[in-house]
Amino acid sequence: MSGPHYGGHMSSQVTSPALRQGLNARQAETVENLMAAGLQELRAVGHEVLTIRTVAQRAGVSPATAYTYLSSKNHLFAELFWRHLSEDGGGAPAGARATERLQATVRALTARIVAEPELAAAVTPALLGGDPDVARLRLRIGGEFYARFEAALAGDRRPADAAVLEVLVLTFTGALLQAGMGLLTYDQIADRLVSAVEVIMRGNE
Amino acid sequence: MSGPHYGGHMSSQVTSPALRQGLNARQAETVENLMAAGLQELRAVGHEVLTIRTVAQRAGVSPATAYTYLSSKNHLFAELFWRHLSEDGGGAPAGARATERLQATVRALTARIVAEPELAAAVTPALLGGDPDVARLRLRIGGEFYARFEAALAGDRRPADAAVLEVLVLTFTGALLQAGMGLLTYDQIADRLVSAVEVIMRGNE
Repeated sequence: MSGPHYGGHMSSQVTSPALRQGLNARQAETVENLMAAGLQELRAVGHEVLTIRTVAQRAGVSPATAYTYLSSKNHLFAELFWRHLSEDGGGAPAGARATERLQATVRALTARIVAEPELAAAVTPALLGGDPDVARLRLRIGGEFYARFEAALAGDRRPADAAVLEVLVLTFTGALLQAGMGLLTYDQIADRLVSAVEVIMRGNE
Repeated sequence: MSGPHYGGHMSSQVTSPALRQGLNARQAETVENLMAAGLQELRAVGHEVLTIRTVAQRAGVSPATAYTYLSSKNHLFAELFWRHLSEDGGGAPAGARATERLQATVRALTARIVAEPELAAAVTPALLGGDPDVARLRLRIGGEFYARFEAALAGDRRPADAAVLEVLVLTFTGALLQAGMGLLTYDQIADRLVSAVEVIMRGNE
């Protein structure tokens, strides 16, 4: 596996380039320990209480070591979220009609996100931060959403209609924002997105 | 003018109930001074530097007085944003087709938001906060978006199709989130939303 592939299909790589490039085996292991500890700490105490210091302690490294790899809590949350999404590689959904494939995609994505509720709660505010490490991950996460919707929309008939793809991704991110604000639960957003796909595709199938 | 009207058409009231109920004339004047000072301070120093303390100073009141009316910076930003939106009452846009009316609505809303760029930058992270005063304003702001899209979608043929309305609002909030993350400028979101309305309405006019 060489390098990131933003525009590609579905990503199976796990560590982002920022955290992988130029690391030796021991450093890479430290990063994996920090990520595992970060997720455990997040599940245990939630994103407001978690600190890089408590993550370092759980990983058995010094805070200074942790800060070598993680610039902020927001960076940790963005990295964990991106891993969580991209680990769920799967294939493109089957189905003869784009509407079916897209509905399967929104159900799969929301199910994946809701599987780590503390991470879901952490990531929306985290992704609004100005930190350059967060900005890079924000692009990768957005790229992952685009790639999944594009695969489902286009099926065998690539390229997908860019304007329709844009609406699907905007609708999906709008629903994630409403969930992040507590206006909708993730179960509600799955149902609303299935209905939204139906509405959007009515004139675009 | 009595009480809030969440489900109604367009709101012309300016102060939210939380900040209005049970205030005497002098208190109401203090609130207006704080709001004016808050907007000036926000324009002058940006949302990261602004504090309730500096807003109080600009308004000529004590910090304790300011905290009587404003529970947090996020509360201030949410209140200012809601006022900014609802002051722009206008009428429902004209046009024979829902698509035209909706496109005029997204242009008007984004133009209104971009008219106060520091407020736009402040409000997305602010609205993700857990503060109860913010939660109340979040519902009012969401209600305002729904009301405007509903008026444009339905025209004379009320009620509007709820599923289509949902997609329009989700798409709009998704675009605001992307702007809040710096992924799109507000000029870009206006153009993309005009295109998005076209796509969504293709099978729903």
